[in-house]
Amino acid sequence: MTDIRFRSDIAVELVDHMGGDSSIVRAARVSSGTAGTPEKDRGLLNMLARDRHGSPFESVILQFRVEAPLFVAREWFRHRVSSFNETSGRYTVLEPEFYVPQGDRPLRQIGKPGAYRFQEGPYEQKVRVKAAHERVARWAWDEYTSMIEGGVAREVARDVLPLTTYTSFFWTVNLRSAMNFLSLRWAHEKSTVPTFPLHEIQQGAMKVEEHAQKVAPIAMEMFSKHGRVAP
Amino acid sequence: MTDIRFRSDIAVELVDHMGGDSSIVRAARVSSGTAGTPEKDRGLLNMLARDRHGSPFESVILQFRVEAPLFVAREWFRHRVSSFNETSGRYTVLEPEFYVPQGDRPLRQIGKPGAYRFQEGPYEQKVRVKAAHERVARWAWDEYTSMIEGGVAREVARDVLPLTTYTSFFWTVNLRSAMNFLSLRWAHEKSTVPTFPLHEIQQGAMKVEEHAQKVAPIAMEMFSKHGRVAP
Amino acid sequence: MTDIRFRSDIAVELVDHMGGDSSIVRAARVSSGTAGTPEKDRGLLNMLARDRHGSPFESVILQFRVEAPLFVAREWFRHRVSSFNETSGRYTVLEPEFYVPQGDRPLRQIGKPGAYRFQEGPYEQKVRVKAAHERVARWAWDEYTSMIEGGVAREVARDVLPLTTYTSFFWTVNLRSAMNFLSLRWAHEKSTVPTFPLHEIQQGAMKVEEHAQKVAPIAMEMFSKHGRVAP
Amino acid sequence: MTDIRFRSDIAVELVDHMGGDSSIVRAARVSSGTAGTPEKDRGLLNMLARDRHGSPFESVILQFRVEAPLFVAREWFRHRVSSFNETSGRYTVLEPEFYVPQGDRPLRQIGKPGAYRFQEGPYEQKVRVKAAHERVARWAWDEYTSMIEGGVAREVARDVLPLTTYTSFFWTVNLRSAMNFLSLRWAHEKSTVPTFPLHEIQQGAMKVEEHAQKVAPIAMEMFSKHGRVAP
Repeated sequence: MTDIRFRSDIAVELVDHMGGDSSIVRAARVSSGTAGTPEKDRGLLNMLARDRHGSPFESVILQFRVEAPLFVAREWFRHRVSSFNETSGRYTVLEPEFYVPQGDRPLRQIGKPGAYRFQEGPYEQKVRVKAAHERVARWAWDEYTSMIEGGVAREVARDVLPLTTYTSFFWTVNLRSAMNFLSLRWAHEKSTVPTFPLHEIQQGAMKVEEHAQKVAPIAMEMFSKHGRVAP
Repeated sequence: MTDIRFRSDIAVELVDHMGGDSSIVRAARVSSGTAGTPEKDRGLLNMLARDRHGSPFESVILQFRVEAPLFVAREWFRHRVSSFNETSGRYTVLEPEFYVPQGDRPLRQIGKPGAYRFQEGPYEQKVRVKAAHERVARWAWDEYTSMIEGGVAREVARDVLPLTTYTSFFWTVNLRSAMNFLSLRWAHEKSTVPTFPLHEIQQGAMKVEEHAQKVAPIAMEMFSKHGRVAP
Repeated sequence: MTDIRFRSDIAVELVDHMGGDSSIVRAARVSSGTAGTPEKDRGLLNMLARDRHGSPFESVILQFRVEAPLFVAREWFRHRVSSFNETSGRYTVLEPEFYVPQGDRPLRQIGKPGAYRFQEGPYEQKVRVKAAHERVARWAWDEYTSMIEGGVAREVARDVLPLTTYTSFFWTVNLRSAMNFLSLRWAHEKSTVPTFPLHEIQQGAMKVEEHAQKVAPIAMEMFSKHGRVAP
Repeated sequence: MTDIRFRSDIAVELVDHMGGDSSIVRAARVSSGTAGTPEKDRGLLNMLARDRHGSPFESVILQFRVEAPLFVAREWFRHRVSSFNETSGRYTVLEPEFYVPQGDRPLRQIGKPGAYRFQEGPYEQKVRVKAAHERVARWAWDEYTSMIEGGVAREVARDVLPLTTYTSFFWTVNLRSAMNFLSLRWAHEKSTVPTFPLHEIQQGAMKVEEHAQKVAPIAMEMFSKHGRVAP
């Protein structure tokens, strides 16, 4: 009997960071060297976000450790202006952790391409979908462990694992690029750009934003104030 | 009964390109404007590759259409200095195409981490591994189609598909970045850097190289001559 | 007597390109493979620009040869998602070509930092400014040629040349990154983002846009229609 | 009488940083989570540098404040995988600081293109070159201040300043990209790639290396041990 674990969360831990609001201000003021009052700093951050002077926001760096299923990781890795280090299924035996959709995950897709909306769906559909996810995970994990135990290379055996398999990775990103991630991966009410992010990556984006707010609170406030477009 | 298709190849088609050896020479000679003889052009390309003057190689662009299983696509997409457009399992119903390892795919991994080698493995192991890949693909495809037919959103149903599922993508890349890809994804005998690429991505890299050789034959010759390190 | 040449223009020649509207459409449609009517293609390009689906625009590549004074080139080279090859003052003896402001170049700066506007200025100021630019160019060129003739290394002699000295470079850029350049370097009436580009780089941007319009007319139309923000 | 200052140094101050040897090790070990002994960490860093596993080195970030003449800054800004914030001659009145070559700056260039070497040159040549640099700086500064005092826009007046004018900028760069900078901008005796960096940028690179050694001493040791090629 295998000890398969099922989960639905996207774990996002801030493991390191560099700088904050004051680094952005300092980078923007390299010209003058003047110190500025807190109020003026606030005004400067407002102006930088409003007029899309993006480069000073690259002075703040965030490093996260993320745990997410592969179908979420695949979207995350599309963000090229950042650094990734991920668990390798070639070098390690993977953990039996798999994603299943929870009750709050809308399951029905309506509308035409490019403008999908989602609806809850009936209770028994939720039960069937959850069961299907669990079945595939168990079958695939059994085949995986059989092959590993039979001496098959990890990089071959892992091919059969589903996109629900959890992976973990370090993500190092500057605040400007993180804002771009947030603008695309969170359909925030203050966003001026229509986006249709995947439910699960939005859960991750919300946690990224929470951490970013602690590191650079005024910059993040101005990002939201000005339509949540990366400067 | 579903019409599942199994394949083992990595398809790489060159769909467009810009420039060639002469564009590299022209970019490198922007200073002088002199025309140069064919022999001098060859000498210049040799020098550029040898001394790692990389930027002129960015004047050549290659655009490919690739078909590969997800576990190969995931490695390919790590190459950040290039552009990708991929089939989306959120917007389309996927094709029932899955990877199975062929007879020439070594299955046994020996040696310690960071220095793995691979061995063939006995015949019956090959048979068992192929059967395991086929079983998981069939089970997962059945669950996927059941959910789609039951009205479940594509982006939820596709989670259960395995990493062997084929995807297709456009890849636009300049020659310098393509050389970096080739240096890491092909354990070529002329390579001076030890690499341990995945068997399947190496099959893709070989095809990328063939196309690149047609577009910029002298540049590619010099790349191999000087240790297959991206300039 | 030296044959110093004075000019005020930014020369932008399209030397090569790859793709066009149809490449963007093809990259966006990788999923379905459907051909689409011209009208549907137009609608797709509209949607991609409106909803900021940027990656398909990376399928179009433009290669320019630019001649511009150093103070313009310095701004141009800040655009990191593109490739540059520039005349080297270390390896070649430079040309005696220098920038002077023409009559239509506004000379007076009014308003507070971050919101400057420019005014014409009186006629005699224009004359004095032009004369000052010419004097410095002649003096610096005399010192430069004296040092070169005296056997001083080019890379040392060229230090004394002013920022008005013309340079030439190849610029290879995808259409998405070119749109970002255009959004920042042209205070276009349809732009929704306030920008204060340098007069001279705006002259260059206008020419870049003209070329881009020939290569991908519908994409460029949609870029303007949706506020001239890079998708 | 103006208070022009002449200098010859490249000032490189480390203003912030994130991580160190242990962050690289942690990123490389994301798979296993094992702690490792100091000796094993050292072995891992050795292997990563030797086999060019570059991405873990992106976990270390360095932020510098640099003061350098424009002809040095122009080369520095070619390093696209990093962030820059520079003093703007459009928004501020510049400082009267200019570069002059010192006695240890070789002035004579010998050999053919692509393989230049430099020689000292006679004493009176040094005197003449220094005087030429000083003359141009004074003339240009006088024209600049006249125009500024006459109400000419800063962005027009600054055009006449020479490439010897000092600028200052913040540079945020990860360790992998910094290693690439060091491999190209320092003709180090342990380097396996032939490079011909500009004398002045090499002075800057030496200081960058000193700071990097403090932040990630073992990583930098392994970089030198394995031919000073960016992993």
